[in-house]
Amino acid sequence: MITLETIQEAHDRIRPFIHRTAVLTNQTINERAGAELFFKCENFQKIGAFKARGGLNAVLQVAQNKEGSAITTHSSGNHAQAVAFAARQVGVPAYIVMPRTAPQVKKEAVLGYGANVIECEPTLDAREAGVREVMARTGAVLVHPFDDDRVIAGQATAAKELIEDIGGDQPFDVILAPVGGGGLLSGTALSTHYLSPSTRVIAGEPEGAADAILSFKSGQVERAPYINTIADGLMTSLSERTLAIIRAHVTDILTVSDPEIVAAMRLIWERMKIIIEPSCAVPLAAVLKHKDKFAGQKIGIILTGGNVDLGKLPF
Amino acid sequence: MITLETIQEAHDRIRPFIHRTAVLTNQTINERAGAELFFKCENFQKIGAFKARGGLNAVLQVAQNKEGSAITTHSSGNHAQAVAFAARQVGVPAYIVMPRTAPQVKKEAVLGYGANVIECEPTLDAREAGVREVMARTGAVLVHPFDDDRVIAGQATAAKELIEDIGGDQPFDVILAPVGGGGLLSGTALSTHYLSPSTRVIAGEPEGAADAILSFKSGQVERAPYINTIADGLMTSLSERTLAIIRAHVTDILTVSDPEIVAAMRLIWERMKIIIEPSCAVPLAAVLKHKDKFAGQKIGIILTGGNVDLGKLPF
Repeated sequence: MITLETIQEAHDRIRPFIHRTAVLTNQTINERAGAELFFKCENFQKIGAFKARGGLNAVLQVAQNKEGSAITTHSSGNHAQAVAFAARQVGVPAYIVMPRTAPQVKKEAVLGYGANVIECEPTLDAREAGVREVMARTGAVLVHPFDDDRVIAGQATAAKELIEDIGGDQPFDVILAPVGGGGLLSGTALSTHYLSPSTRVIAGEPEGAADAILSFKSGQVERAPYINTIADGLMTSLSERTLAIIRAHVTDILTVSDPEIVAAMRLIWERMKIIIEPSCAVPLAAVLKHKDKFAGQKIGIILTGGNVDLGKLPF
Repeated sequence: MITLETIQEAHDRIRPFIHRTAVLTNQTINERAGAELFFKCENFQKIGAFKARGGLNAVLQVAQNKEGSAITTHSSGNHAQAVAFAARQVGVPAYIVMPRTAPQVKKEAVLGYGANVIECEPTLDAREAGVREVMARTGAVLVHPFDDDRVIAGQATAAKELIEDIGGDQPFDVILAPVGGGGLLSGTALSTHYLSPSTRVIAGEPEGAADAILSFKSGQVERAPYINTIADGLMTSLSERTLAIIRAHVTDILTVSDPEIVAAMRLIWERMKIIIEPSCAVPLAAVLKHKDKFAGQKIGIILTGGNVDLGKLPF
């Protein structure tokens, strides 16, 4: 059970290691949306993504409680960097299992934080086997990217800061986050539930990885009908843990197409002059697609990260 | 003569219309440079560039003093948008003379601010003739992109804010700005001279538009030996006015190649997650090229703008 106190303790624990990221606004985008948008810029966070928060909250506790002699996880994305970064802060070895097909630049980023990269075949089975092998060999503790209360409590601190900084005098009508495995969305929903109970939480999901909207409706963890989206951070499915929190505290999940995601991404790049990943643009794409749902409202949006390959841009 | 009071009055005049832009830092870039860098983010300024400052300071005075019934200028770049934006704030018609070869997106941006676009042949003669024709026909007043004390005093407010926000307890060792026509550099040098007299001002200039370094040495306005650079905002030559200020208050001009500019631009995009124009990257390229000159120092850098064509990136 993640309480308000859990989230407050997570924030106190990770605060020395993270940025309290800026909240930006843009007049043109407000006019385009017909609403008042506040963007929480986790693309400016350590390692370039909100994942630093959850990774730190878990790794700091593993180290403090001496739960293991090392940390491991499997990820080809921002969570890999987050765990490597966090492990370096506490001086514990990290073993990151990555598919051999992962971009070299991502492997180098993990190596740059002093972690070990264990290559495996690009399947979920091979990744999980790789982690089990590391755990058996090194005594490492697994820090899962989202199916972990400590990770969720860490991710919750982004919405906590957004509410504290901007939602004081006049609460947000809505806070939006994208949904992949549901760690950020769960944390966002919990912080909002505790700190701004009148605020709805709505998720954006790519049509090309639309599992969460099915699970949300059925109450079972469902698989996406197909996986094909530019939002490469959002391809994973929910877990029982994240689904339960999302069913309890999220109002709605809205899906958007890849062209809508790219258009929203381009709007943020061109107008706000900041670099965001495609996954980040999903909530804005949802707001622009469903203007009637958001007209005239005060809206918070978590911009999740800015780690893009400049050589492979969609425009 | 631009005094401290002139700059303070300019700041008071334009303050309601501009952003006090953020100053960002980045640990990785500091490590790479071996110095402590503070980036003044004018890419976040209105119209996406510092030029809003000078345009506003001139246009607001033209309107207040009823010097003419309209505003005109010739520009294919950020100054065109700055004048169009400023004219709209005061409700005065603007006529922007643009070469017919200018990108459609730039013409549309000017039209979007409600200004009139007058197309001309892409030569300096044709542009100047176009402006003369507009002045004769409409009674418009010319606001030159840099050869104008009111424009220079407006541009000076960027360095003024940087010094006020970051240069208080421990003054900057150096402030760097890029140099094209010299409006920003002149304003930066004057603000620094008045407000932080122990701070050196150094300019960065592309090798492919290297007129300022020649003029700085000879004391005459010189032409560049050749014009061929990705830094399209820095192709113009100094005027007598800007050269005089630069000779009086600038310590040095450092030139950098286009590959050095692109590498510095990419470093800022990848590490700071912000979008800057190639021209912006010239001072950082100079710092990275001449590390010995800057080692261990506190350095301010004006990032001038973020208006890039995402379809034509150099990486």
